[in-house]
Amino acid sequence: MHLIIDGFGANPSILESEELIYQFLDDYPSQIEMTKVAPPYVFRYVGSKPEDWGVSGFVVIAESHISIHTFPERRLVNIDVFSCKEFNPERVIKDVQAKFELTEVETHLLNRGLESYYLETVESKAV
Amino acid sequence: MHLIIDGFGANPSILESEELIYQFLDDYPSQIEMTKVAPPYVFRYVGSKPEDWGVSGFVVIAESHISIHTFPERRLVNIDVFSCKEFNPERVIKDVQAKFELTEVETHLLNRGLESYYLETVESKAV
Repeated sequence: MHLIIDGFGANPSILESEELIYQFLDDYPSQIEMTKVAPPYVFRYVGSKPEDWGVSGFVVIAESHISIHTFPERRLVNIDVFSCKEFNPERVIKDVQAKFELTEVETHLLNRGLESYYLETVESKAV
Repeated sequence: MHLIIDGFGANPSILESEELIYQFLDDYPSQIEMTKVAPPYVFRYVGSKPEDWGVSGFVVIAESHISIHTFPERRLVNIDVFSCKEFNPERVIKDVQAKFELTEVETHLLNRGLESYYLETVESKAV
């Protein structure tokens, strides 16, 4: 499952804080029963256009990741929650909306290919 | 633009190599005229199911990222190329197909929200 959230109207004082983004990536996986495999990786960047500065962060969870890019001047946040384990997308959207004080969200949910015919072949051979 | 590639039938000796994944994340951004803002971050993990071991990696490019998760036992690779800058998705799919020796790909291309009405408001005020 890959949940894609573009959130608008966010509180810029949250979006500009590396500490708050780090905290979110550090705490949130366990709230949705995901297992971090490494600490989050968060930093501030400055884009070629002055309004494009912001904070980027990742946390790797078993076989997948949560990523976040913030644009405080645009009150915009792009979040991806990509996990091999099922989770409740409505709950994540609601949590993110509350956390970043969003007024508007655009979301996509994809079911990504995880099983190839190679694994199926190996498994049916084993039976 | 957010290009999502699930590639099947990959060469497992490429998928299991942290060095090759690092090299790909380090070299590829400049080939599609993207600017790395930090070195790639790559590591090996072992999932709860034994077939789920693999390599995960990220590289942050201006305001966005390329991520990769490999599953050598499944000959599967999940790649995301998310960039605020336009790129040629057909070219990236072709490059990834060649690089990982894929026999099958499933792809999605999303146009993600980047402009919120806040920025538009600020800009029209400035005029």
